[in-house]
Amino acid sequence: MNSPQRSAAGWARRRRAKGERLRAGDPYTEGKVIVASKLKDLLHNVIRPGDRLALEGDNQKQADFLSRTLADCDPSILHDLHLLIGSVSRAEHLDLFERGIATKLDLAYAGPQSVRIAQLIEDGVVHVGAIHTYVELYARMFVDLAPDVVLLCASAADHDGNLYTGPNTEDTPTLAEAAAFHDGVVIVQADEIVDTKSLPRVDIPGSWVDYVVQADRPFYLEPLFTRDPRHIGDVEILKAMIAIRGVYERHQVVSLNHGVGFDTAAIELLLPTYADALNLKGKIARHWVLNPHPTLIPAIESGWVESIHSFGGESGMDRYTAARPDVFFTGVDGSLRSNRLLAQLAGQYAIDMFIGSSLQIDGDGNSSTVTDGRLSGFGGAPNMGHDPHGRRHATQAWLNLAHGMGAGRRGRKLVVQIAQTFRAGGTPTFVEELDAIDVGNQAAMPLPPVMIYGDDVSHVVTEEGVAYLYKAHSLADRRDALAAVAGVTPIGRRTDARRAAALRRDGLVAYPEDVGVSTRLASRSLLAARSIGDLVAWSGGLYNPPAQFRDW
Amino acid sequence: MNSPQRSAAGWARRRRAKGERLRAGDPYTEGKVIVASKLKDLLHNVIRPGDRLALEGDNQKQADFLSRTLADCDPSILHDLHLLIGSVSRAEHLDLFERGIATKLDLAYAGPQSVRIAQLIEDGVVHVGAIHTYVELYARMFVDLAPDVVLLCASAADHDGNLYTGPNTEDTPTLAEAAAFHDGVVIVQADEIVDTKSLPRVDIPGSWVDYVVQADRPFYLEPLFTRDPRHIGDVEILKAMIAIRGVYERHQVVSLNHGVGFDTAAIELLLPTYADALNLKGKIARHWVLNPHPTLIPAIESGWVESIHSFGGESGMDRYTAARPDVFFTGVDGSLRSNRLLAQLAGQYAIDMFIGSSLQIDGDGNSSTVTDGRLSGFGGAPNMGHDPHGRRHATQAWLNLAHGMGAGRRGRKLVVQIAQTFRAGGTPTFVEELDAIDVGNQAAMPLPPVMIYGDDVSHVVTEEGVAYLYKAHSLADRRDALAAVAGVTPIGRRTDARRAAALRRDGLVAYPEDVGVSTRLASRSLLAARSIGDLVAWSGGLYNPPAQFRDW
Repeated sequence: MNSPQRSAAGWARRRRAKGERLRAGDPYTEGKVIVASKLKDLLHNVIRPGDRLALEGDNQKQADFLSRTLADCDPSILHDLHLLIGSVSRAEHLDLFERGIATKLDLAYAGPQSVRIAQLIEDGVVHVGAIHTYVELYARMFVDLAPDVVLLCASAADHDGNLYTGPNTEDTPTLAEAAAFHDGVVIVQADEIVDTKSLPRVDIPGSWVDYVVQADRPFYLEPLFTRDPRHIGDVEILKAMIAIRGVYERHQVVSLNHGVGFDTAAIELLLPTYADALNLKGKIARHWVLNPHPTLIPAIESGWVESIHSFGGESGMDRYTAARPDVFFTGVDGSLRSNRLLAQLAGQYAIDMFIGSSLQIDGDGNSSTVTDGRLSGFGGAPNMGHDPHGRRHATQAWLNLAHGMGAGRRGRKLVVQIAQTFRAGGTPTFVEELDAIDVGNQAAMPLPPVMIYGDDVSHVVTEEGVAYLYKAHSLADRRDALAAVAGVTPIGRRTDARRAAALRRDGLVAYPEDVGVSTRLASRSLLAARSIGDLVAWSGGLYNPPAQFRDW
Repeated sequence: MNSPQRSAAGWARRRRAKGERLRAGDPYTEGKVIVASKLKDLLHNVIRPGDRLALEGDNQKQADFLSRTLADCDPSILHDLHLLIGSVSRAEHLDLFERGIATKLDLAYAGPQSVRIAQLIEDGVVHVGAIHTYVELYARMFVDLAPDVVLLCASAADHDGNLYTGPNTEDTPTLAEAAAFHDGVVIVQADEIVDTKSLPRVDIPGSWVDYVVQADRPFYLEPLFTRDPRHIGDVEILKAMIAIRGVYERHQVVSLNHGVGFDTAAIELLLPTYADALNLKGKIARHWVLNPHPTLIPAIESGWVESIHSFGGESGMDRYTAARPDVFFTGVDGSLRSNRLLAQLAGQYAIDMFIGSSLQIDGDGNSSTVTDGRLSGFGGAPNMGHDPHGRRHATQAWLNLAHGMGAGRRGRKLVVQIAQTFRAGGTPTFVEELDAIDVGNQAAMPLPPVMIYGDDVSHVVTEEGVAYLYKAHSLADRRDALAAVAGVTPIGRRTDARRAAALRRDGLVAYPEDVGVSTRLASRSLLAARSIGDLVAWSGGLYNPPAQFRDW
């Protein structure tokens, strides 16, 4: 029998370190409120070289007052930080590395910085731990990547540190919890600091927060989920018609997630018109997990949508979502409440389908958005785009894809890839080898950065038709079915007409006429809204689009 | 172009209904605090017939003051409720159905009530929507099962409804969010109602909570994760030795989750002894996701464990976890913070292995704890016991099980089943057909209630050896490898000695001597603690075991 090998103090090193940090921060604060002009001094004193630091950069919102101030710190004081950033989307995120303030990076997404980050990795300036999905990166903060400091953003705070995140909650509660409950320091920029009574609601309790600082301007927010219907063409509409009849109607898909893109925007805009004429209202697409897409407004107004739970908000949609609380999740103050963690959970275990666009698909159905040397990362699609094996309840759509025998029999989530055979400029979508393989090699990644694996894909929809990959009994069948809807791309040219006819007969492939779609009807006249202005009108003036989407 | 088809009020039916409910509850409250003697009156007035009502019954803690009071309500006033209960573990949960107060049930687990619930389903008294895992049921509360009312429990509340959950947070924040942000009513029983300044910390903000009531006694809490080392025998120790050498050491498993049971308790107690002698300290089992198992105390005290994130707490472990904040997650008050949702996320995306015991395994490796006509449900094991396809970061252990070629190549989570070939009473663990198939048929379930599917299992460990199922290239290989470690059970008797030798040569099967385990060393003298008393001693007196585990 041993006795405890460490003194009591030896078990609270993180807590003691936090106490020292807070004392070092004291001269720059009034209570929990940082004197804004002293923020840099506080960061110099509270953060330590080598710290693991989580900087809030979500899919949409960015703690940019904090990131700009951090990037302006003195590298002789602050250096060798290990940064955890969901979305590396601002220039200063990488400036931190060029200035030597940070050296190591764990991330999920790098869309807007994807070219520069690839170069900095090659140059050895950025040392990447790993590229994750959003929730995967957050999950590691509770296991082997516990942050010493987190830098977050909120719409408002009171002097006790109680936070109002506004409609864009996204990941703030999760990041706050990772630090607040493991002796990390929680520092939050707020668009405004108000009296407790003026705080619309409390999204995060003040006892989780160490410091708040008034930001120099509202945190940066990107309208990622807005698609202008003006750019939806006849081919997107044809694909949408095929998807509605060949997938939504056929499998009676009640609950679902749409990725972002013009293909799924087209589907959203065909629900109140094309799908309504098919008498599908109330039968399909009733429960949604997705951000408040403006292109869903006509379907919502037409009574198609019973509920929507959201990962985050969307610029311009705040008044609309607040006015539709039966559909959207809202708080006591009446405004939207989003939460990525819960939306991910709902997306994994409570919905029947994910459908999203892809830039590149290989002959096995593996897909990636990593193309042309850009290292864009994963974001959230892999979490939605697979069959969650931990699900145990059955629905009609899920059972419709049932497989296995005896005890092994179970249903399957629909994972649908929707794509045009060629992208703009005549670049084929269906390719012999994904660019991701080259990019992964160049960045010395242990595996190629594949977004969704072919064996997780149940359906592929193109303007040529639907490949029902889940019905394939062999890899050869799966490849042939995919090729049969891949047009004249390198993959599509593998098709043999007799083989395609056999697959069609066996139900592995359907062409538009097989699912009752008249290609000649595919035109913009089917869209419930043909412009951002139409969406504003549908919303009764509640939707207030960002400036870049207004042309009036 | 349509104009909105409903008036503004038509989009806030839930909010209006909530307002009416709160007004009807007014006479029985002082502010947010329910007069305890008026609780039944309040429930009669705030809940409505046909409501969807979530009653907090987690894995461990139970809102039993609320459930007892609800079961005592008048069925002529309250009837036909649709109950959502994680763990149906109290008699009054089913009394609600016998009295007609509730008619429909969605659940995750029914361990202690598994016989009675099976009968009530057969009698048509309980109409089951579906049986889920815990997080799957909660996920649906954000999609198609939004609750009208939630009944929760907390350790303490203030008069504004701010909640302190204590070490057993489990699912309270998730259930509160499902109602608070979709115009449901949130009613919470608290062990005590205190002044705001006396609340140790805020786990859930008061603006999420409509009512609090002082409970007649502290909420019921079951010590589910305590295993008395006295009951660990030589066979468990042998299996633990085989697992440590054949799985943990071989794959260098750094991060993991242990299920509950004597097998994994034995592994925990061999880390500071057997595994230490193998020089494995610091190389394996450093980061954990699991409840505070008392049998982990010796490993923690010996410096094996860097971090533990927990789904819930464990009775008697509160002082110990509070004294080890470098290892456990704790709040500003110094006490444990748990959170099932985050632990599940960590378990899916941030750890390399799940290992758990099973009661029954068929020849394909499908397993179930549903036996002998008991409908025990799923709990949380299916969420841990599969390879999460949404993971994208690589670790050594995960890459060690890599499969696929080219773009399709990826790693795999270790999903390990550990079992003795025969259970107590000579009942074989390995069977031709799972009892789950019969039970599922009798309960008219759409699919048999399988806990973990064979194709998700990477390893099976028995006292005979290890089957490395992930290496099997065919279903026949997989079956043969499993049979080779299944002893003289009906499945094991399928083994052909020459075939087993071939599998052993190819590395699909390892016997104890193949992984360097001397079976003759398997004895209780290897255990770091041989009794609950030993665990208390290891903890320096900080562990305070529940009465039923004390024999001194």
